Order: sequence, then structure tokens, then C-alpha cells
Amino acid sequence: MEFNKTELNKVIRGAKKASYNKDEIYAILDISEICNIAFNYKGKAFVQPINYGRKGDSLYLHGSTKNRMTNALIESGEVSLSVLILDSMKLTRSAFHHSVNYRSVVIFGKVRELTSDKGKLIGLKSIINHFVPNRWEFCRKPNEKELKATKVIEIKIETASAKIANAPFKDNKADYDLDFWAGEIPLKTIYEYPIPDKDLKKEIEIPAHVLDFYNKRKDGL
Amino acid sequence: MEFNKTELNKVIRGAKKASYNKDEIYAILDISEICNIAFNYKGKAFVQPINYGRKGDSLYLHGSTKNRMTNALIESGEVSLSVLILDSMKLTRSAFHHSVNYRSVVIFGKVRELTSDKGKLIGLKSIINHFVPNRWEFCRKPNEKELKATKVIEIKIETASAKIANAPFKDNKADYDLDFWAGEIPLKTIYEYPIPDKDLKKEIEIPAHVLDFYNKRKDGL
Repeated sequence: MEFNKTELNKVIRGAKKASYNKDEIYAILDISEICNIAFNYKGKAFVQPINYGRKGDSLYLHGSTKNRMTNALIESGEVSLSVLILDSMKLTRSAFHHSVNYRSVVIFGKVRELTSDKGKLIGLKSIINHFVPNRWEFCRKPNEKELKATKVIEIKIETASAKIANAPFKDNKADYDLDFWAGEIPLKTIYEYPIPDKDLKKEIEIPAHVLDFYNKRKDGL
Repeated sequence: MEFNKTELNKVIRGAKKASYNKDEIYAILDISEICNIAFNYKGKAFVQPINYGRKGDSLYLHGSTKNRMTNALIESGEVSLSVLILDSMKLTRSAFHHSVNYRSVVIFGKVRELTSDKGKLIGLKSIINHFVPNRWEFCRKPNEKELKATKVIEIKIETASAKIANAPFKDNKADYDLDFWAGEIPLKTIYEYPIPDKDLKKEIEIPAHVLDFYNKRKDGL
């Protein structure tokens, strides 16, 4: 399924790198840890990084009841956010063509606060299972007091786009004769072997859901 | 030197993690590749990732002359932006205490467009040398046509704050008796060995500034 191109999500610069494919967009969202939320507060634009969860066409965020961003989003009723995974740095002969390869997504959606315990738990489960798949089943669920201290918001994704830069190297024709070095430096985020909490009961081994996650992420995203 | 705490930069949630120290803030900025810019466009808040450079108390961004974000920033005259480096994931016994260790920075500044060639070159040099230190000396400088196609903006940093989460593990006392596994998964961004462009003249070896950069980054930030 493809998102419609609207004034909001249509990629203008670098349109060749654009994708409106839902599967492709959600795949990038699902392996990213942190999104960046844009919000207005007293007429100024702010940005704040935060973790999230996804279920179907909804994203979930949580924050304390006094969180400025959460409250600003609930008030505005809409949000845009972005995620980015950096894949490599391209060092060209010309300063002008230096660039990076990356996978990024921009999401536009409608915001609503989930106020029932049932709604909050759906959101929080999605956030914890985004953190580490299946984690929700292997930790203590939030109690009454914790639920009360937490605001949970749902973002209904209305439109979105991805930008995927994985193009080969590019310099102007004439520049290939220059004596400057040019090349690529790949980079990646790797996850290291899980370290048990020092106060962990000795008999508890690293569970399968944590090892599965480690094995999927140890060589990068 | 410390930034003054104002309504803009004062950290409310997690105040113990806050730093207003300029050296600490600039150290995080200088090893981050990408910042996230908040801007208003037609009354809505947007966020966009972009690379940048820093020289003293100024940051520099560049974009094509038609870039929506660059033009929105010039029009508004001010900006807030953030960077974040993720260091580890903390899996607690309770869903509620799951969290991450990270280093993040928020910057607030005044924006102006640099329109002279001299001003543009100062900004672009800073951006290229942020990409890879000393790179500017070892590539072809922008020509007249490339300068014309590029908007460069300067952000005078007015105030800022960092938030550094590196706290040890935390669960509620009663939860330590539960049989759930708890622990930390460290993560880091590593840079891989530079790959020469396939069309590189055979006699050009990987230069010192590129190897220095690789050696500093290969084990993570």
C-alpha cells in the first residue's frame, strides 16, 4: 500500500530517493529506537527525541503527566515526527558533493490522549515491545499508581514518506582527474552482549527474547 | 562557562541529568553527525534531520536555495535543534522503569543567512570539517556556480542544555524479588574502514585525516 502524496509528505528535494510505500516506511520505523517529535510551545517550534511503539497504523508515545511535549501535542491534536538511520559517509573530491547514505522517515498524524487504563496499557505494551520484541510478557505490568503517573498518546498515521539514500559515489566528471582521495566510510549502530543487572538473582539466565534481539541487532540495523 | 537557565533551556523532567556547561554541550555536538531541526511552516511544527558544523558559538547549516526548511528558518529568525547519542538500553523487572542511557543536547539560537561568498565559505568549511576534521584542505573548494546554488545559514547559539543519562539500574525495591531477567544492552555507533571510490586513481592512498577520523570513531562515539 502506498500513502498518497500530499503537500505535507511529498518529497521535493531528492525526489528520486523518496518512497511512499507503507511496508518500507514501517520497516524503518520498527528498527529505529528514537524518533524526533516536532511541537509548538508558546508559538515556537521545538524538537524532542523520544522512544515509541507502533501497532498497525498507530504510533504510541508516553510521558509523565507534566511533560511539556506530551501536553503540547494533545493540545494541538496533530504531530510530525522523523526517524533517521545513518548508513555511510561519502567523501567526494569536491566539497560540494560530500553526502551521506541514510534511511529516514517522516510521519504526519492526528494525536489523541488515551485516558482509560485499557487504552494506556495498549500503548505501553506497544512501546515496551518496540523496545525489545516480546518484552511485555517478561516484565511486571504497570500498576494503578504507575498508570496514573503516565500520559499515553496515540498518533494515527495519516500520511508519511521515506527517503532512502543508497546511491553510489558521485563527483563532477572533471574532478576525477584531481589528486584528492575519495571514498566511503560505512557506519552502523551495533548492539552489544546483554549485561545482567548486578543485583539479578543468580539463577536467572538471559531469556530467549533478549538473546533473539541481541542476535538480530549485533551486526547493525 | 555555563549557559544561563532560562524558560527555554531549563530542563524540567530529569533535572538531575541536566548540564548547562558549554564544554560538555559542545563536546556532544562535535561528535554527532546529524541534528534535528524544528521549524514552523504554514503554522505547523516540522522536524528535519540535517548535518551541520560548529565554529565557536555558531552552528552552520546549508541547503539548496529552494529548501523549505532553510527558507522557513531564515524567515523566522530563530531555531531550536537537538542531537542525541544513544548509549544503552536498560531492561528492568517492571515495565515502568525501562529506560535508556544517552547524551543529548538542545540548542536555541538566532538565525541569519550568510549571503556573501566569504560568509558562505566560512560556513561550508565548518560543515565539511565537522564531517571529517581537516577535510576542507583535501578537497576541491566550491566554485562560483556551486556557491550560487547553496544557501548557508548561521545559528548564533543563545542558550542550550545537555541531558546526560548514565545512571545505574533502577527497579522498585519489591520488584527485586521477581523472577524476571533485568539487565543492560549497550549500543554504539561504529565507523568501518574507509572504502576507496572504485574510480579512484590507483596511486592515491587513504590520507592521514581520514585514517585519524576512522581510528577515533571505529570503537564508537
